[in-house]
Amino acid sequence: MATSENTLRAIAELSQIFGDRLLTTKVVRSHHGQDESWHKEALPDAVLMAHETEDVVKAVKVCANYNMPIVAFGAGSSVEGQVIPIQGGLTINFTEMNKVLDIRTEDFDVSVQPGVTRKQLNMELRSMGLMFPVDPGANATIGGMTSTRASGTTSVRYGTMEDNVISLTVVTADGRVIKTSQRARKSSAGYDLTHLFVGSEGTLGIITEITLRLHPIPESISSAVASFPDIASAVNAVITTLMYGVPIARIELLDGLAIEAVNTYLKSSHDVKPTLFLEFHGSDSSVKEQAEIVGDICSEFDSANFIWKTLEEDRNALWEARHNGALAVMSMRPGAELLATDVCVPISRLAEIIEKSQKYLQEDGIYGPLMGHVGDGNFHFVIPVDRSNTEEFAKIKAFCSRLASDAISMDGTCTGEHGIGLGKQSLLKDELGECVDYMRLIKQSFDPNNIMNPGKIFSLDA
Amino acid sequence: MATSENTLRAIAELSQIFGDRLLTTKVVRSHHGQDESWHKEALPDAVLMAHETEDVVKAVKVCANYNMPIVAFGAGSSVEGQVIPIQGGLTINFTEMNKVLDIRTEDFDVSVQPGVTRKQLNMELRSMGLMFPVDPGANATIGGMTSTRASGTTSVRYGTMEDNVISLTVVTADGRVIKTSQRARKSSAGYDLTHLFVGSEGTLGIITEITLRLHPIPESISSAVASFPDIASAVNAVITTLMYGVPIARIELLDGLAIEAVNTYLKSSHDVKPTLFLEFHGSDSSVKEQAEIVGDICSEFDSANFIWKTLEEDRNALWEARHNGALAVMSMRPGAELLATDVCVPISRLAEIIEKSQKYLQEDGIYGPLMGHVGDGNFHFVIPVDRSNTEEFAKIKAFCSRLASDAISMDGTCTGEHGIGLGKQSLLKDELGECVDYMRLIKQSFDPNNIMNPGKIFSLDA
Repeated sequence: MATSENTLRAIAELSQIFGDRLLTTKVVRSHHGQDESWHKEALPDAVLMAHETEDVVKAVKVCANYNMPIVAFGAGSSVEGQVIPIQGGLTINFTEMNKVLDIRTEDFDVSVQPGVTRKQLNMELRSMGLMFPVDPGANATIGGMTSTRASGTTSVRYGTMEDNVISLTVVTADGRVIKTSQRARKSSAGYDLTHLFVGSEGTLGIITEITLRLHPIPESISSAVASFPDIASAVNAVITTLMYGVPIARIELLDGLAIEAVNTYLKSSHDVKPTLFLEFHGSDSSVKEQAEIVGDICSEFDSANFIWKTLEEDRNALWEARHNGALAVMSMRPGAELLATDVCVPISRLAEIIEKSQKYLQEDGIYGPLMGHVGDGNFHFVIPVDRSNTEEFAKIKAFCSRLASDAISMDGTCTGEHGIGLGKQSLLKDELGECVDYMRLIKQSFDPNNIMNPGKIFSLDA
Repeated sequence: MATSENTLRAIAELSQIFGDRLLTTKVVRSHHGQDESWHKEALPDAVLMAHETEDVVKAVKVCANYNMPIVAFGAGSSVEGQVIPIQGGLTINFTEMNKVLDIRTEDFDVSVQPGVTRKQLNMELRSMGLMFPVDPGANATIGGMTSTRASGTTSVRYGTMEDNVISLTVVTADGRVIKTSQRARKSSAGYDLTHLFVGSEGTLGIITEITLRLHPIPESISSAVASFPDIASAVNAVITTLMYGVPIARIELLDGLAIEAVNTYLKSSHDVKPTLFLEFHGSDSSVKEQAEIVGDICSEFDSANFIWKTLEEDRNALWEARHNGALAVMSMRPGAELLATDVCVPISRLAEIIEKSQKYLQEDGIYGPLMGHVGDGNFHFVIPVDRSNTEEFAKIKAFCSRLASDAISMDGTCTGEHGIGLGKQSLLKDELGECVDYMRLIKQSFDPNNIMNPGKIFSLDA
């Protein structure tokens, strides 16, 4: 596609302001044309390496003037095509805007720039006895995690980004800078703009600073692994654990296929059965008590081998296995692209939907190991996709639609933590109906010219 | 004020639909003209006793047709004038729409109608081993608590309404019914409309059903009381407790004046000093461990008498004292009206702002005992107000403004849990600046004719 006159003028103006921080080479643009999903690449016209909020203000003002789309880019680890600039325009890369600005130990909060990664933040917090627990697996940026309302393995205890973002600094579509909330722990001051921006996938404004809740690093951490004869037993063990009020920190399920992939990838020898990976946080005695209770519950649900791991080394090995789950699966089909389903249902329906879907997968001959955050009712089938195999790809897409419809019919959601992006727009409508009209009203009033990540979440035509 | 032709026609139409559930007597209108605040009464033109969502749809359609304001009314326990119909119109009373619809024990959630009160809900949940922990003191309705983003004594552990509302059914300004979210524990499906409605004080639509998170009733509950030589010691004990990661369920501060009022009101004999009221939830051993740790911390900060109460009777007496704090203070000035300040600051600034404000109160000769949710940094001066004493009232209002400005300058909020309503609109602007413009955009797009609780939170003229 030829670059329009308008775009060329915008780039010239941006280039004048930002010098060599405005990049237009093919290789750089390509790097910003794709995320970790199966969605098709599309290139931005230019990429800005932002260093401060004021950079974003200046860039947005130029873009607003030329009606040029703007996409924010962090680690590029989104899995629904959120960062793909499908209408071209300017991508703002935040990886050099990655300072931890202010850690306030007494207040258990921290302000960071959007390019700070989750691991970097925890490295900086560790010596203060604090942690930021939200853990989506990938070493995503805090900006990206905020924009997609990410969560992950620890949400059952510590909540999602929703629960851990206190305040945001946002550059709006006309280049104004707003701070959505003060730093107090709670507030009833008007509409909750903070949580309107969390999960808005860059469509309402560009986040340039984030204040997060922190948590004390627990005195004691231990893990456990337990395998079960079937999915229902594992899920019932989870439900019973929650009913007992055990403040479990992580409770993850892998099915036999996923365990098999992990064993192959990491040369481990876990039992090839539905398996729970668990983690306990608390005081020494509380962690011991939690492990004992959960051990008893697992036996009650026919787990043959509840193994409690107190050594840090053993724990790390366990979570390496869990965190490498998707990689392990993808390594079974070299060259394939990742498609991860992401439904989340009320936990009472979890075993039912998993077993039903596994049956579909088997009938359709689709390879899709399962791993998930079962304490929240959220799970993923990780499906390696070869888009050139059109017949198989059609089957996979049909499976995904059926899974999402089943989840919605159970009062669940088509996306627990990955967002809508490009791939789930019609499902969003199935799930929330006329709510989408109200989302559109907000979008239109905040960004009347539709320059903020256009084409994501919903289309503007009702 | 004479009732307009337009209003008379609207009332006639509503009356035809709802028969004797539409009330227009002076006594009923008066009952709906005031909340528990010092704000001036204003009467609605009519009151509808709603029974189901469809009633609200019909009423909204008539009101929309005649541009008639609509205010939702629950227990009338708001403290910032939220339910006062300052432009007249229709008040919808939800006290007869008070069914607990569906308790789902495995999913730890419940759907309720808006008129269900907090105590009623907990009565119905008890036999299932579940509880809804948000506790603002008053026996408010869940609808009202949702609309004002209420919190209270247990938020330090269980969060506010923000953290405990899963989904809402809302009748919008044109009479459409939307359900803002499915029932899954988490979701990344588009903009978070649920939390946009939570705290919107009836200005964006009328909430007609609420799905809430539930929590297991802990195996063990115990309380403690500890008095301190000064505010700073008490606050430092709180900060240290949080740093230790003690999952404390309640941690409340009363100053000497408040203790004095409580002693008089309840004929109790608490030490007349800054005092923490604490509650621990967990397993037997965990509760014991928590109490021991916190006992040690309190001694470290010069508390002479940490008293641990394990008997339910003693616990109840303790929390009766805390919950009757405001009543106790008001009983010291019979006939006065309630003005409760509500700032919330980062906890590192808490002792500073309290001590500074107490000095102001003393200098100005204002009687204002303090009680607050110090684990969140939120506290109230409870000030009995006699509006006819204009000189004193002016002094009190000046004190409130100064307190709010101080809180805002410390990155705190002018309202931790009471909302903006009528009294804090200019403070909202001081606190959030241009954010208010974006709130106004949302209001205008959701309710273009401004019939939903007009005049609350902000004015429509920028």
